[in-house]
Amino acid sequence: MPGLVPGIVVLHTLAMSTAVSPLAPQHVPDLPAIAGVRLATAQAGIRYAGRTDVLLALFTPGTATAGVFTKSKCPSAPVEWCRDKVKDGKARALVVNSGNANAFTGKSGRAATKLTADIAAKAAACKPAEIFLASTGVIGEPLDASKFAPVMAGLAARAQPGDFLAAARAIMTTDTFPKVATAKAKIGKATVTVNGIAKGAGMIAPDMATMLSFIFTDAAIAAPALQALLKDGVTDTFNAVTIDGDTSTSDTLMIFATGKAGNPRIARAADPKLKDFKRALQAVLANLSEQIARDGEGARKLVEIIVEGATTKVSARRIAMSVANSPLVKTAIAGEDANWGRVVMAVGKAGEPANRDKLSISFNGIRVAHRGARDASYDEAEVSAAMKNPKIQIRIALGLGKGRDRVLTCDLTKEYIAINGDYRS
Amino acid sequence: MPGLVPGIVVLHTLAMSTAVSPLAPQHVPDLPAIAGVRLATAQAGIRYAGRTDVLLALFTPGTATAGVFTKSKCPSAPVEWCRDKVKDGKARALVVNSGNANAFTGKSGRAATKLTADIAAKAAACKPAEIFLASTGVIGEPLDASKFAPVMAGLAARAQPGDFLAAARAIMTTDTFPKVATAKAKIGKATVTVNGIAKGAGMIAPDMATMLSFIFTDAAIAAPALQALLKDGVTDTFNAVTIDGDTSTSDTLMIFATGKAGNPRIARAADPKLKDFKRALQAVLANLSEQIARDGEGARKLVEIIVEGATTKVSARRIAMSVANSPLVKTAIAGEDANWGRVVMAVGKAGEPANRDKLSISFNGIRVAHRGARDASYDEAEVSAAMKNPKIQIRIALGLGKGRDRVLTCDLTKEYIAINGDYRS
Repeated sequence: MPGLVPGIVVLHTLAMSTAVSPLAPQHVPDLPAIAGVRLATAQAGIRYAGRTDVLLALFTPGTATAGVFTKSKCPSAPVEWCRDKVKDGKARALVVNSGNANAFTGKSGRAATKLTADIAAKAAACKPAEIFLASTGVIGEPLDASKFAPVMAGLAARAQPGDFLAAARAIMTTDTFPKVATAKAKIGKATVTVNGIAKGAGMIAPDMATMLSFIFTDAAIAAPALQALLKDGVTDTFNAVTIDGDTSTSDTLMIFATGKAGNPRIARAADPKLKDFKRALQAVLANLSEQIARDGEGARKLVEIIVEGATTKVSARRIAMSVANSPLVKTAIAGEDANWGRVVMAVGKAGEPANRDKLSISFNGIRVAHRGARDASYDEAEVSAAMKNPKIQIRIALGLGKGRDRVLTCDLTKEYIAINGDYRS
Repeated sequence: MPGLVPGIVVLHTLAMSTAVSPLAPQHVPDLPAIAGVRLATAQAGIRYAGRTDVLLALFTPGTATAGVFTKSKCPSAPVEWCRDKVKDGKARALVVNSGNANAFTGKSGRAATKLTADIAAKAAACKPAEIFLASTGVIGEPLDASKFAPVMAGLAARAQPGDFLAAARAIMTTDTFPKVATAKAKIGKATVTVNGIAKGAGMIAPDMATMLSFIFTDAAIAAPALQALLKDGVTDTFNAVTIDGDTSTSDTLMIFATGKAGNPRIARAADPKLKDFKRALQAVLANLSEQIARDGEGARKLVEIIVEGATTKVSARRIAMSVANSPLVKTAIAGEDANWGRVVMAVGKAGEPANRDKLSISFNGIRVAHRGARDASYDEAEVSAAMKNPKIQIRIALGLGKGRDRVLTCDLTKEYIAINGDYRS
């Protein structure tokens, strides 16, 4: 299944623990420093012992920012904070903690975001409104933001260009590997870098972004243009991934552009000079979102669902999501069963135009159903062998129009139940 | 949690195998005969060995019928057959087989329904258009309807008033127990009986009926009135149950009214004389649909979700379904964890009006969240003890309006994965 992982720059091997998802990328790119971005991580003791749980990213004055956030009607306190502050488009620091999502925490949640921003603003010598916040972990438990106070000055003092992998590690929850991606692009004569980190393994059905992801670039691009690029970029990346159909209260995707690359500042997203940057940004978003599918809780198979011949792209997306979120399709894949009958079921329940007698379905290139019935030529042994592949591509041809879409998901295994039947305790 | 099982007539104990769902009703009602209905079952060898897999129900001339069917865009061949024939409102026989759904079987599927109807019409001495058909089991495999020929004449000869439990057994697939219910009602001075059978354990998210359910009554009610009663009846029964959010290609709910009870024939659903009948029908539908939730694949907990204070009933239904279909909520319940943070997530993702700061959530009567934050008075030990109950009620108070709704579901366990990871092979 070529094309599932866009190859991005030089890749290096990363040693990981034995519990890592079997779908984890074999090679992890080495992320270059971004001029104007300094990073540091620490153990604030929010919930976990013996691991980092807070990330501070410091940005040079003049850094532009944009963000897209969960469409949940019950968003977390940090999401409300960021949604408000991002309107000004100026960022001096980002503080992310893992272990506690500061979601559904009421007034105390709002107080915790304010306190965190105050502590970080003091350490970063800026205004609290220039601090962006994200929290991930348990929902509903009060976040004790005073725990950030003892570590924040040290974080600011230690912050240096560089270790994005450590940054990605500090924001993990049930993730089994840190998620990073990088790409380079030309804007005019200047070469700019786009680095990204992400976390997320469960409660993944982004309705505009997923869980937490942060993009850093040295490009000089104005905040409104960044906002437009980001909104456009998520459609076929983060918004095209689902693990369990459960949309988080904390979904946050932000971009920080320091402007240190030396390109003339770009004001509009439509500027033709952004063509290569858009490609690079899209590659980073696609790479990170695929890594999230690869780290789906309990996942043993990466599943790509392609719907073509739908009446529109929107219709194709809805059908693809209906298949991707079907527990019966996902458990069949876990059982290495090319159960296309369940795919038919999931197509049928999507409520979108579909004609049984024109429908064709293939698994990893082997057509098993054609024009409303089992494909006469299909060989069960061949399909069974193909289903042992860790990557499964389900291609659904509706035969109605030109609408096409693609989403990524993973299988549904007993490990998902084990992970989520005992997460809180 | 009183009220979950409407107590219906006299109950008798039924011996079952050890693999039966722990949530199965402890007592099974003894269903009286319905004048004008005769039943027989047989082993046609469609898929299973050593068990009955075909049911024939014969109806007296003049029997009126109505039905509601899956909204799937890829319905099974029998659904298409019934949807067409039910327009005339006349039934002389019902043939149901388990083991093969005759869904996504193309032209051969249509031919199989025609052949089955021809075979049954010959045995029942009626027109094929008066035969109703339902099939349940594997999707996409051709149904060899010629297997019905050797058994059909014998079925018709043996058919007699009575054994509804055997009828319910013959239509089971992954069900762990047969599902029957009965109620009596007065129409004028006549006492009428309403019996029902159902099957279903997975692929349950009815969008108007679920899997297969058949209601039999001796009441004299015209077909259009039956249709209106049935359509009205499913809203808060079959349509308020979900196991896995997966809507079947074969959902069929039909009613057969023989008119042998002696009541003056009722022409209109709005006739006030139907008041008690409506209550009885509703009780049977509610009882059967709850039994389906109790037999959810792998279920260890029966879960009732009550949403109140929503802006409308429709909004309450969507929120309740969002909670009921959330894998994270369902796995938490399997783990006996009152993880109300996931309930908040599922409320938030429903896309319906909700205000975090007015939201309250309780588990089995214990309020754990109140007005947008953890309930200060809640005792984790008390809640943990309550979560060991095989019935879990989640009550969500939105505090916005008067919209209220209730849906039933079950937990999501490793057994669901085991059952569905290896069903086809």
